[in-house]
Amino acid sequence: MSKTEPVGDFGLIGLAVMGQNLILNAADHGYTVVAFNRTVAKVDRFLNDEAKGKSIVGAHSIEEFVAKLKTPRRMMLLVMAGKPVDDFIETLLGAGVEKGDIIIDGGNSHFPDTNRRTKYLAEKGIRFVGSGVSGGEEGARYGPSIMPGGNEEAWPYIKDVLQDISAKSDGEACCQWVGDAGAGHYVKMVHNGIEYGDMQLICEAYDIMKRGIKLQDKEIGEVFSKWNKGVLDSFLIDITKDILAFNDDDGTPLVEKIMDSAGQKGTGKWTAINALDLGQPVTLIGEAVFARCLSSLKAERTRASKRLSGPKIPEFSGNKQEFIDNLEQALYASKIISYTQGFILMQNAAKEYGWKLQKPEIALMWRGGCIIRSVFLKEITRAYRADPDLENLLFDDFFHKAIDHAQPGWRDTVAKAAQWGIPTPAFSTALAFYDGLRTKDLPANLLQAQRDYFGAHTFRIKPEHASEKYPEGKDIHVNWTGRGGNISASTYTA
Amino acid sequence: MSKTEPVGDFGLIGLAVMGQNLILNAADHGYTVVAFNRTVAKVDRFLNDEAKGKSIVGAHSIEEFVAKLKTPRRMMLLVMAGKPVDDFIETLLGAGVEKGDIIIDGGNSHFPDTNRRTKYLAEKGIRFVGSGVSGGEEGARYGPSIMPGGNEEAWPYIKDVLQDISAKSDGEACCQWVGDAGAGHYVKMVHNGIEYGDMQLICEAYDIMKRGIKLQDKEIGEVFSKWNKGVLDSFLIDITKDILAFNDDDGTPLVEKIMDSAGQKGTGKWTAINALDLGQPVTLIGEAVFARCLSSLKAERTRASKRLSGPKIPEFSGNKQEFIDNLEQALYASKIISYTQGFILMQNAAKEYGWKLQKPEIALMWRGGCIIRSVFLKEITRAYRADPDLENLLFDDFFHKAIDHAQPGWRDTVAKAAQWGIPTPAFSTALAFYDGLRTKDLPANLLQAQRDYFGAHTFRIKPEHASEKYPEGKDIHVNWTGRGGNISASTYTA
Repeated sequence: MSKTEPVGDFGLIGLAVMGQNLILNAADHGYTVVAFNRTVAKVDRFLNDEAKGKSIVGAHSIEEFVAKLKTPRRMMLLVMAGKPVDDFIETLLGAGVEKGDIIIDGGNSHFPDTNRRTKYLAEKGIRFVGSGVSGGEEGARYGPSIMPGGNEEAWPYIKDVLQDISAKSDGEACCQWVGDAGAGHYVKMVHNGIEYGDMQLICEAYDIMKRGIKLQDKEIGEVFSKWNKGVLDSFLIDITKDILAFNDDDGTPLVEKIMDSAGQKGTGKWTAINALDLGQPVTLIGEAVFARCLSSLKAERTRASKRLSGPKIPEFSGNKQEFIDNLEQALYASKIISYTQGFILMQNAAKEYGWKLQKPEIALMWRGGCIIRSVFLKEITRAYRADPDLENLLFDDFFHKAIDHAQPGWRDTVAKAAQWGIPTPAFSTALAFYDGLRTKDLPANLLQAQRDYFGAHTFRIKPEHASEKYPEGKDIHVNWTGRGGNISASTYTA
Repeated sequence: MSKTEPVGDFGLIGLAVMGQNLILNAADHGYTVVAFNRTVAKVDRFLNDEAKGKSIVGAHSIEEFVAKLKTPRRMMLLVMAGKPVDDFIETLLGAGVEKGDIIIDGGNSHFPDTNRRTKYLAEKGIRFVGSGVSGGEEGARYGPSIMPGGNEEAWPYIKDVLQDISAKSDGEACCQWVGDAGAGHYVKMVHNGIEYGDMQLICEAYDIMKRGIKLQDKEIGEVFSKWNKGVLDSFLIDITKDILAFNDDDGTPLVEKIMDSAGQKGTGKWTAINALDLGQPVTLIGEAVFARCLSSLKAERTRASKRLSGPKIPEFSGNKQEFIDNLEQALYASKIISYTQGFILMQNAAKEYGWKLQKPEIALMWRGGCIIRSVFLKEITRAYRADPDLENLLFDDFFHKAIDHAQPGWRDTVAKAAQWGIPTPAFSTALAFYDGLRTKDLPANLLQAQRDYFGAHTFRIKPEHASEKYPEGKDIHVNWTGRGGNISASTYTA
């Protein structure tokens, strides 16, 4: 029996929870999968446990891994983003990988790294693909959302296996070619940013129900359960109802015992930074990331809670069901804003980085398998299929009407939370964005006057007010004080 | 007459508005200043115009510039940040600069560049200083705020000239040594971020007075004028009242004709990105930057204003003076939050980058000369002088009481703006931060449960709920569904 017979259709390196489940998933679809892990003992444990009796073979060295794969080799890395990916690429290059082979990075790599790796490997004749994979452990096992981008030459060779193992939504695979270079990881990054936003919105709704109208977790869970049958029907709302119903051994909800200090290091932050870099107002993800930062200052918050005052939340005397309905609308409207912002960001990234991102396909990929999957994404797919050049999701009739209907409840929720002293950074920023977007004349005219006043930064005139003295489209500086010079700032920005 | 007699006490390269004014300022203080500009014609124009009859000499080449300075040479660059700074450094190195000479970068360089340049030049025996300079054209002319950091060996040689030309506040120079490497530019960056925040807050107040209670610009100007005599007394409020009173030839306020599309590319964005990188919730600056981004989407906003609905702002029937007083408190409280966030950021940056930032001195430097100068900063200096280890500005009695007093008006303003449809992203995020900070138990427990549910990311238990099953300080994973495995995510972050 030769250990190095090339029997494998697909290889996977990295046997953490996602990797193991993706292997089992591929095996279920009839592929023979070769499994490798740096700590080799993990390979044997896996083979003798979950992988037993399935079309899964182990490799005990990277050379054996490469040798056991049919050519062109299809190899996926599911290792920690950053240096480990580069290290494994180099290891693979030295272990028999040949021209035409395909390396897929299925981890959460930062898209500039994927840009670099695609180029680097293309020069060696290796086809590199950076692919977002979302769905957590369950998704990986039974069908995740897969967002591949990179060297498009690879797509015909990997399309079958990736689409087979991916989730399906209305019969369509939640795995489509995203675009060149880092486009796949970029779209996954924005997906994760939106996931941060969705989670923060749910947390704000939970907090308002708990502290604002004093519902018990069981009741809150029932509200989420009901919401999950309406416009908010989604994976995250679904698991929230499960979590709120999950009791510890003492019969009280476990969630109330969990430390309120949120972890985060990666993709949400990257999305917010990228939005700032591209100058796009993706405020909801920004606030969601900052909310995690604030949550993690638990010790400081505990001290602050003893020193800083706030209003006493009054006994709720209104109609609770009406309040909850308003809250549902606040969550729904805020979510629409968050996706609107996310698509604005991707639209601008496509322009900036020269990618041909297909908006309907992105919405399709997010409809199944992944963490943010929801009924709502069907409407986004529909809207962009109906009008691929749709400038803004809110300009689509469905979303326009939804926001219009949601407004009174949304505004009421934000106003009440402000009065009660319950923080709603995401609800509030979504509303501020909506109100800013629909405002033709924002107060930035004053800001531009200030900049010209103190720094001679110049301003432009509104076309409707253009005159001979202040012509349209020209950079104008005014001597506001009569004291300063008439020099405008050409090279210095204060 | 030798053209290359070393007569200069101080040299300055870059004759845009800031450079010219700093030269005139230094000459007023008795220094002989050597002026150079890449476009040499500008040197002659300056010498024959503003510089005439003053102790200012021109240089027509970089070699002449270097030769005309006494050693150790003190040379300041006021050129565009980025490559021009590196280019001029190289040019100076090739033009006779000697060991012990001092190069000061007075532009808005990004602090990592200043870190790099300090190190690079130290290896060549040249002392490099990266110094923030704030004050706009007037400040530069009559006394800016100067924030030098870098190679501390330079400080004894430049202290006199920089402190002489700087602003004074209660007799103290608004120029103190900030710290190693990029510390000076870092503090200037945060200054600018706070400036973005202050300007956004003023714009929101103006917008609410204009659209919310329908005041005329003249009346709004009078409100700012009154505010400028109270707790909000500051340069930016002062110029705002001037701007609102400044009429065009037709007798209407010029500010209403200015395009509401705010410029920004640099330091505010850097501050927000740095906050995200350090994981610190500097939400107000973040929102201020995003507000500028949204303002710049003028064409899209104009289209949106025709398609998206909002509430009709009702005729104001309440007590206007009371409303305006509430608004003043909203602005004041939000400003306190913004500075609190800024100092949290600097505190963490000092830890992260190994700088010994002196908080009282930073507040002192910002008290005079610069764009954010205000009465309010005196209280910050006082608070940090009284307790240099003060964890949070809000824990100081003065600020605690101020916020406490401001709360009802602040909450009322945010709630009304939400109901009226006037965007107040900065007021709102400040309030959400305050309410989040003083909340011992935030809803991030649910978020952690979600992350563990879908991605096996683990959570920790609140100490008061620790048990044998769920011990304190351990990473815990729960099998929420009964279906998933018991493997926690060790290397993969969804």
